[in-house]
This record gives sequence, structure tokens and C-alpha cells, in this order.
Amino acid sequence: MGKYAIGLDYGTNTVRALIVDVADGRQIATAVWPYHHGREGVILGDDPHLARQHPDDYVRGAERTIRAALAKARRAVRRFRPADVIGIGVDTTGSTPLPVDAAGRPLAFGRRFARNPAAMAWLWKDHTATAEAVEITAAAQRLRPQYLAKCGGRYSSEWFFSKILHCLRTSPQVFRAAYAWVEIADWIPAMLTGNEQPGRIKVGICAAGHKAMYNDAWGGYPDEEFLVRLDPAMAELRCRLEPKAYTVDAAAGTLTARWARRTGLPAGIPVAVGAFDAHLGAIGAGITPGTLVKIIGTSTCDMMIASADKPLADIPGLCGIVPGSVLPGYWGLEAGQSAVGDIFNWFANVIRPHGVRRGSHQALTAAAGRLRAGQSGLLALDWNNGNRTILVDQRLTGMLLGQTLHTTPAEIYRALIEATAFGALTIINRFEEYGVKVAQVVNCGGIAEKNPLVMQIYADVTGRPMKLSRSSQTCALGTAIAAAVVAGGAAGGYDSFAAAQHAMTGLKPKAFTPNPVAHETYRQLYALYRQLHDAFGTTSWQGNCHNVMKQLLAIRAKSGR
Amino acid sequence: MGKYAIGLDYGTNTVRALIVDVADGRQIATAVWPYHHGREGVILGDDPHLARQHPDDYVRGAERTIRAALAKARRAVRRFRPADVIGIGVDTTGSTPLPVDAAGRPLAFGRRFARNPAAMAWLWKDHTATAEAVEITAAAQRLRPQYLAKCGGRYSSEWFFSKILHCLRTSPQVFRAAYAWVEIADWIPAMLTGNEQPGRIKVGICAAGHKAMYNDAWGGYPDEEFLVRLDPAMAELRCRLEPKAYTVDAAAGTLTARWARRTGLPAGIPVAVGAFDAHLGAIGAGITPGTLVKIIGTSTCDMMIASADKPLADIPGLCGIVPGSVLPGYWGLEAGQSAVGDIFNWFANVIRPHGVRRGSHQALTAAAGRLRAGQSGLLALDWNNGNRTILVDQRLTGMLLGQTLHTTPAEIYRALIEATAFGALTIINRFEEYGVKVAQVVNCGGIAEKNPLVMQIYADVTGRPMKLSRSSQTCALGTAIAAAVVAGGAAGGYDSFAAAQHAMTGLKPKAFTPNPVAHETYRQLYALYRQLHDAFGTTSWQGNCHNVMKQLLAIRAKSGR
Repeated sequence: MGKYAIGLDYGTNTVRALIVDVADGRQIATAVWPYHHGREGVILGDDPHLARQHPDDYVRGAERTIRAALAKARRAVRRFRPADVIGIGVDTTGSTPLPVDAAGRPLAFGRRFARNPAAMAWLWKDHTATAEAVEITAAAQRLRPQYLAKCGGRYSSEWFFSKILHCLRTSPQVFRAAYAWVEIADWIPAMLTGNEQPGRIKVGICAAGHKAMYNDAWGGYPDEEFLVRLDPAMAELRCRLEPKAYTVDAAAGTLTARWARRTGLPAGIPVAVGAFDAHLGAIGAGITPGTLVKIIGTSTCDMMIASADKPLADIPGLCGIVPGSVLPGYWGLEAGQSAVGDIFNWFANVIRPHGVRRGSHQALTAAAGRLRAGQSGLLALDWNNGNRTILVDQRLTGMLLGQTLHTTPAEIYRALIEATAFGALTIINRFEEYGVKVAQVVNCGGIAEKNPLVMQIYADVTGRPMKLSRSSQTCALGTAIAAAVVAGGAAGGYDSFAAAQHAMTGLKPKAFTPNPVAHETYRQLYALYRQLHDAFGTTSWQGNCHNVMKQLLAIRAKSGR
Repeated sequence: MGKYAIGLDYGTNTVRALIVDVADGRQIATAVWPYHHGREGVILGDDPHLARQHPDDYVRGAERTIRAALAKARRAVRRFRPADVIGIGVDTTGSTPLPVDAAGRPLAFGRRFARNPAAMAWLWKDHTATAEAVEITAAAQRLRPQYLAKCGGRYSSEWFFSKILHCLRTSPQVFRAAYAWVEIADWIPAMLTGNEQPGRIKVGICAAGHKAMYNDAWGGYPDEEFLVRLDPAMAELRCRLEPKAYTVDAAAGTLTARWARRTGLPAGIPVAVGAFDAHLGAIGAGITPGTLVKIIGTSTCDMMIASADKPLADIPGLCGIVPGSVLPGYWGLEAGQSAVGDIFNWFANVIRPHGVRRGSHQALTAAAGRLRAGQSGLLALDWNNGNRTILVDQRLTGMLLGQTLHTTPAEIYRALIEATAFGALTIINRFEEYGVKVAQVVNCGGIAEKNPLVMQIYADVTGRPMKLSRSSQTCALGTAIAAAVVAGGAAGGYDSFAAAQHAMTGLKPKAFTPNPVAHETYRQLYALYRQLHDAFGTTSWQGNCHNVMKQLLAIRAKSGR
């Protein structure tokens, strides 16, 4: 008799429920629900940096997608019964904190703040808190440099405390009304298990460690003495945050009877502690020590793990190094590129060379694929959305160099792909420079699946085979794996992630192998890329051009954009 | 009773005859004839660098356009009679040398070489002789540095001896059959006056001085000892070149009876010594000491003159400094940008953002005009076709910096316009650094006439008013002025260029004046432009990136483009 696990994958625009067979990870059914609020699920404001979500979408999304997936599973597998589902996992975007009252109810659910974006979930890509991020970084540099050492040396405007501090500064009535702030990765499992009251929420080490400077070594979240320097009200908040964070092998609780009725699932099955999509996606892609998992979409997450038994140096420029954030017993290492698919989308959809239709990358890809490495004479920097790894600097911009009067759109498109490949290689090199050996690269995500040219260029640039994860839903699969592990072997799941991953994950048969001629050309081009990277992205390079992009942004700000 | 002069203006694709009233320069009639051979008048080959013209187009072009213009003049001015035309002038592209036999007949007219591109006119933009240009530059640096001091320090592949040497190396049978090589600026007036036999041709100082290292100070063309180092056959050629070069106040001869019959003009009227379009265009735009004339089209020529009575330092990076090349009695100073309109055309027609129709710049210009200086955060280098002044380096390429995920085509278009304005300012600064004061800037050419946004940005970037020449045919007008001067006051023309220019040239009433706010922003942006200019274009800047564009071109060449 089969056993099944559900992964609930909360993305930026939609939520997905995936039902997999615990025996082999095979996808039985999936259902997607687009969020109802805002524009494609994102609530925007006059400030172009504002991006929020309404928590009602999380609640309705769970109900709708689970019900729909169960119905599909019944049609797809004759002997499938909802009672055979042994656990649920949840992955989400993040840092996406949500202000809640003392009962754990989102402030946005009350009438007072129903339409106030500050009372909603502050989506990962909300960039309103730039000033607060600078402030927190400066304070930490002065007082608690150890807080920054594990998160790339800079605290981001996308992260937990930046957003809360910005709320305190700009919407104090919301801040005062909020008893606590909870990452949606933690709030959704708490909601499903009836544990949403602050004090009972099991928060995940993934969100807390990567985005909120949580570390068991210094007693959890940043200490009060530090927070009081930001604002006394921030220090008061600390005692209402959870004291301990958990890895994803822990259960946030069990499914309530009410949620069992709403979804059709059996009550009492365990719900895993939540984590971010990339971290659970790494599990779904089969991450092991030595495996770099690249999740390539509009941006990338580049995930690795390293045994927690051995000491690990701080790796400058990584987004985060957190014990247990991917798998229990391992350091979770997160790197990433701020824009990959987004750069290709910008060129195809905003510049629209030849008037290509919105979203149509096929013609550009076909023409770019007919070019050889180095043939265009172009070189680009992949910084249109800043650089997350290894420069950790959002105030960087794109560059294209080498244009003639004959340069074609396809040549530019290829140069942009190559630039992201050079960025990817820079991340691999950084891992290895600090002793984290990259033995294989496993790719997943939309770009990896849909664009073989990108994968071939990545192979040619890095000189490494590009492998593809077998599942096309690695995040939801990894989340379902966590569900199978919290359910445990006795319930038909697994007692370890190693066993679960072995059974439930795998690679596609075809890998992209590097062409030696192209690789040699790219080796030369990468040297030039690194020269520009260091000249424009660092101050360490002698006679650098580091000021140029900064001053252009300052001039732009003054000219009233 | 009115007197008239004809300017024959031989461009890249067409020839134009302009009949003007000698009293005030007013345009009476004009006729244009597109060359018959090749693609839009340019004969192309398998080698993309090859660009030739068939001399038959020069002959037929003169006949057709003069006849047509006379017919139009008769219709336009009741009392106009062809007998009232007192002189003819000729301007052409260049360096465009043509191999001829001992009678001065183009080799392409004979059956043997009728279809051989090497026997045709080697159009200015033919770039097949790159290797020979390097060779000539190296030889001159070693043996005759003075030859280079007056032409920007580098001998170009576009120039006279590079092309002849390339013919010797690659088409020796044509080289051997050629008795001499003649610039079309010299050959066309010689043809009209029956003086095309080598030894009787009056060559112009403009072509000889700017493109063939001719200088009275060292006895004319480069000496035999130098030429023999290139090839003994080159040295033999020297004695068949004309010993002396003339300014445009000299007559190449008088119109033959045969040409009088072919055109309907009176026989015996003087034909002025020929010169290049930009040089005669500067006269037509009213050049005086202190006036920078910018002829802005696909590329620019930036012309100035300075009294030959005073010593003038060599100005590094200028295309040429030749006494008498514009006006007798003055140094002719030529600078220029390798691509201006061509860069805008590339973006609109090759990249085609939003699928704009070929040639349609209106939408981009309108949207770019709504932006403020500095608002886009973009900065570009205007080197898509190399840099003619002040870097004198064709092996430079374009650059665009500052892109985000929101950068629009209009922002890029404006950044490209601004980049050409920064290039223009760099030229102005170079003139002034070497003591050639720029008191006013007079613009002419297609871009200057048709795109007010470009002119406004040039005013804002340079902080100087941008004035416009009254005539929209300054090259042909300047050529007609030369015709009026060689005709002389006694014939109803003028005895000096000063008098002729005073009567026949002028400015449009409206000038573009700088906006102080925009100028201040551009002052800051120009500092960044200069930083990139020096970092990528020179080796003098510490920690420069000078290698980047070179190495990209080397990689491109190896990858088999």
C-alpha cells in the first residue's frame, strides 16, 4: 500500500501543492493556485520598492491546492486514499515577515489594518528598508561583527530586522499593534497545526539563521543590548520572538481537525518545520557534501552543505552560513545571483529587440546558439540587479562592452547569458577557495529546465558538467521529503534525510558536458570578466573604477528619478 | 544680371550638383544622382572590409546632375542662363584613390580590369589595408616620425599609401598596370578640364596633406628612401605622383569643350582644385579662426582653422594639421568622431528596440527627450566604430554601463547621444588645450539639421551654444564658393574667400543654448566619461583597463568571425 507526502511550496505569485510517492519521490499530483490579492499576488504601492502579500492568500492557498491535488491524485492513482498521506511540509519565500497579534493572528485580518500594507507580509523582494539595512549593518560592524560574518558581511534590506525597523519608523501604529513578527515559513506550519500563538511557534533555523542573525552560539537572535541601539522598541520585541530555532526534521505540530476538514487530509499527521524554498529545493535536488545545487530562475540560489563536525571558515561574500539550515548536521551555505532570468527577461521584454513578443526568448536563444564562444567580441557584467555573491552590493549596475556598429541582439543576449555564467563560476571559485570542494553541480529551476543553451554555456564557462535534477519541482519535492522524514519510518516515511533523498531524488540522464574549445575561449574571457568585476566591484583593485557605478546612482538620485 | 557657381559634391552613395547665386549663396537648383554600380554606389566583396566605387559613376554623375540642375535652375529663376555660371568646384570623399594609366584613364575603364575591384576607386571606408597601415605607421615611427606628427600619430588603413601598398601586395597585376594613383578629389577636376594625364593634374593640398603625408616642408610626398623601405615599387611610384599640391583658390584648369557640350555649361570656365567634402563644408558653414565647424552625420568631421602666420604645436590625436587644407593662409585642423549617427542607426535599426521600423528614430527621440540629464543612471562610450579623435584607435569598441532591470530603450538611446556629446566635448577640450580657442560652434549635416534633441544635449554637455549653418548643403555650398573664388572678382565672383564667405554663408536664427542645471549634471557625468575614456582608451591611466577591448577583439578574431 503506497504512502504519500505533501509539499506546500509558497512562491512569489502562486502556491503549489505537490503529492509524491514516498517510495520513489514520483509526482502523483500537483495543484497551483495564483494568489488573489494585488498584482499577480504582490501588493504594490506608490513606492516602487514596496512589495507585500496578503496572508489570506496563504490560508486560502493551502486549502485550495491541497483539495485540488488530492482530487487529482485520486484520478491519477486508482488506489490512492487521502488517509495514505503521512505528512506535510511547507516551503516559502523569505525573508517575508508578517506582523501578528498576541494570538498569532495576522494584523491584516483585523478591520483596523485590513488595507494597510505595513500590516501585511513584507515580501522578500520588498526594498523599502534600505536605510535601515545600512543602519543595522553599521551598528553590527561596530558592536557585533560576528553577526555579519555569517551573512556575507552586510545586512540586507530584504531581511527580517530591516523590515521591522522600517515599519517602526514609518508605520508606528502597525508596529505598536504587532505583538510579534513571524516569517511566513514559520507562520504557515503554525497555522496548519494550531500553534500560531507566539511562544508556541516552532521557528525554522533556515529563516532565523539566514535572515535574522539567529545563532545558538550567541543565544539565538541578536541580544537586547544590540537591538536597543537600533531602537528600544526593537529590544522589547526580542522577548516575544521564539527562543529556539529548529531544523526541518522537527515537526511544527500535527494537522488540526479543522484543517483536516478544510483539506480532506487526515487529522494528526505531522507538519514539518518550515524553511525557504531554495533550502528545501536543495534537498529535493539531492544535495550532499560536494554537490552544488543551483536553483536558476529569475535569480539563482546556489546551495551547498558541509559537515558540521568540521570547522568551517567564514566565507566572505556568501549570503549565509548557518548550521542546519538545509539539513540537520550540516552547515547550510547559501550563495546566489541577484538576477539571471530577470536579465534575459529585461532584454527580451523591456528592450524587446526586433520587437520580440513579450516573454518570447525562443528566437533570441536560437540565434545566440548559432554563435561561437568569443565570436561577438562582447563582454557583460551581470549586475543589472546588483550582486548578491560575492560582492554583496546592491548598488552595482550592468555593463556591456565591445559593441560595434554590427552587434546584433542575439550577440547581446548571448553575452548576457555568458555574464551570468561568469557570475556562477565566481561563486564556485569562492566556495573552493575556502575549502568547500565542488565535486558536482546539479541544476534545477525554470531556466535550467527550459534553456539548454544556458546550461551548455554554463558547462563551457565552468568547465564542469551541468547535471539536472530529475524532478522539475525540486522545492516542493524537498518539502515533501521533509514531510516524509517528520512522519518517520514507523509511519511509512524515513528516519533520515539521507535515506529519504536516496529513495526520492535523482538526476536526469542527460548532462551538459563542456566543449574544450569553448572552455578555453571562456577561460580567457573570464580573466577579462574578473578584471572588470574587480575594477568596478571592489576597491581593492589598484586604479579601480569602483566609484563609477556609485556616482552614476548618486547623480540619478539627485536628478529625481 | 546674376552670376552663379556650381558645387559638385561626390558623396558615398550619390553625387549632387548645387547651383547657387554668387551674390548671396542662395540655392537656385540642386540635382542628386545615385551611383549606378554596386549596392547604393558601393562595390562590396567577400571581404567585409572591402568598399570600392566604379569611376564611371563619377563621369556619368557629373553629366547627369549638372544637366538636371541647369534645367531646374531655368525653371526656378526666369532670367537664369547657363552662360551666367562662372565656375565649378568639386568636393569628394577621401581618401579615395583611383589607379590610372599613363593617360590618366582609370584602369577600370579598360576591358582587362573592368570587373576587378582593385582597379576601381578605393572608397574612403575600405578597410582592407589594416596590416599595411600598421606597417607604414611602424616604419614612419622608426624613420620619419615627423610624417606622423601631423596626422594624429598613426597612419590609417583608410589612407592613400595603405591602400596602394595593399594593392601591391594582393593585386600586383593591377599595381603594375597602374601608372599612377590619383585621389578622386583630384581626378574629377582633372577630367572636367582635360588635365587627367599624370604630370598635368593639379592635386589638392587637402587630400595630399591629410591622407598622403604630403608637406612642402619636406619636399612633398614621403621621400623615396622611406618608400623603398615599404617596397621598392612604392618608391618608383613616387616620381609619377605630382610634385606640388595646391589650395582650393587655384584652378585645376578650365572646362573642356567636350564637357561643355555634355553638361550645357559654357566652355572655358574655371574648375577649382578639388578637396574633401568636410573641408569645403567648413567653408560653406562660414569657418573662421575660432569657429569650430561640426559636420554631423553618420560620423562627424570637426574642422577648425588657425592663422598660418603663427606657429602651431602638433596637437596629439587630431586627424590632421595641414597648411591650406581648408583655406589658403590658414592651418586646416581636422578632428572627428568615427561614428555618431551610425551609433543611433545601429540602435534603432540593428537592435530595433520595440521593433521600431527601419530608420524610424522619432519615437526613441521623443521618449529620450522627456528624460532629464542623469536620470537614467547610464553612461556610454561612443566607440562602436573606434575613436578617431583624440585616441586615434579603431580597435576600440562601445560600452554601456549602469543598466538595471528597468532600463528602457529610450534611456539607452539618450545615453548614446550623450556619449557622442562627451566625445564632441573631448575634441573641443583638446583644441583648447593646445591653444586653438573655440569661440563658437557651428553645426551642419543631417543630424544637426534634423534632431534638435541631439543639438540641445550637445549644448547642455559642452556648456556652449550650438549654432546651425544657414545652408543645409554646406559641402556643395563651400565647393560653389571655391568656384566663385577661382572665377575671380572680374568674372563676377570674388577675389578672396573672406569676401565670398561673408556674402554667401550665414547662420540660422535659432541657436540651442545650454540649460545650466543640465550642464551641471553633465559636468559630473563627463568626469566619469573621462575616467572610463582614459581607463579603457589609454595606457597612461594607472591600473587601466586598456587591454580589455583589445583582448576581446583578439579573442573574436581567433574564434573565426
